[in-house]
Amino acid sequence: MAAAIDFYFDFSSPYGFLASQKIEALAKKYGRAVDWHPVLLGVIFKETAMAPLTMIPLKGEYSKRDFARSARFHGVDFRMPSKFPIATMAAARIVLWLKGRDPALAARVAKALYRAYFLDDVDISDPEHAIAVAASAGVDANEARAAIGEPAVKEQLKREVEQAIARGVFGSPYIIVDGEPFWGVDRFDQIERWLATGGF
Amino acid sequence: MAAAIDFYFDFSSPYGFLASQKIEALAKKYGRAVDWHPVLLGVIFKETAMAPLTMIPLKGEYSKRDFARSARFHGVDFRMPSKFPIATMAAARIVLWLKGRDPALAARVAKALYRAYFLDDVDISDPEHAIAVAASAGVDANEARAAIGEPAVKEQLKREVEQAIARGVFGSPYIIVDGEPFWGVDRFDQIERWLATGGF
Repeated sequence: MAAAIDFYFDFSSPYGFLASQKIEALAKKYGRAVDWHPVLLGVIFKETAMAPLTMIPLKGEYSKRDFARSARFHGVDFRMPSKFPIATMAAARIVLWLKGRDPALAARVAKALYRAYFLDDVDISDPEHAIAVAASAGVDANEARAAIGEPAVKEQLKREVEQAIARGVFGSPYIIVDGEPFWGVDRFDQIERWLATGGF
Repeated sequence: MAAAIDFYFDFSSPYGFLASQKIEALAKKYGRAVDWHPVLLGVIFKETAMAPLTMIPLKGEYSKRDFARSARFHGVDFRMPSKFPIATMAAARIVLWLKGRDPALAARVAKALYRAYFLDDVDISDPEHAIAVAASAGVDANEARAAIGEPAVKEQLKREVEQAIARGVFGSPYIIVDGEPFWGVDRFDQIERWLATGGF
């Protein structure tokens, strides 16, 4: 099997959510697996002196409209959460901790966390909410709670974000296919051609 | 004929250039005309506290790669100009001045200016270079030179930029179809569905 597709995302990213609902089908079509990399845009934005999309004048208003329209365009259910953006450390730590044990479960939990935030308006910045979502996807709640507070897991997330920045990740979703970087769910058409042709 | 598509662009914008090579065919397919609106991103970026794409850490490097790849993806010839970004007042003034006289010629000149900058590496921030490009597209050079210095034309560009900001324009290309705004050549798929279906 060819190398996995690296899928970098922040749980607070609407375009990341849309991409999370489509990436596995796209990868599977070309015999690829998906490596889920939760990162923290807040840390990355400090590096790039960027601001959350919705806080930028003019662009912010456009973005809210484009989130919903892009969701309809891609056939993905979506609702703008009432609290936005949110801190996503707890959710990211749960997923990273699970990756070391059971990558398939980590992917299912990542998608469940995204759906909780963007479909059910659950504030997953609250660790207890993130734990409850993970538990409903089959994770032991007490183990997840312990993992969030575990120094090794905190360190793992810190390293993941540093490595992401070192690889050029500046936004979400950010997808790397065989070394080629693609930013945004609106690059899925280019990703698909890249996968189909081996590069263009 | 249904309302024209409003096409806002800055002559220094690579994605604007790519869009400029595709917008008329797309519009024509759905019986629409294109209204060409040259604007100045430098002025708009002051409003939105944004920086030119290529100057943002990480995002800048990605963008240069994405310009070229997106050009290949869309089947448009492209080369990154040796001087970038540039001031585009002279080019914008020529096009606006022509619009009042001959909109079809203004559109041809706009495309010629874009091609000069992005294919032939002509620095169109130099008014004499912009005049030469316009002249080669059939415009009287002396009239174009006079127009660039004309207070009424300067004022026209100022108003055009103010109106663009009032309509929410924050980037290039920015396309408005029947009141619906789309930012980026990567929204052409959504624009096409919008034109085909009347909105989704």
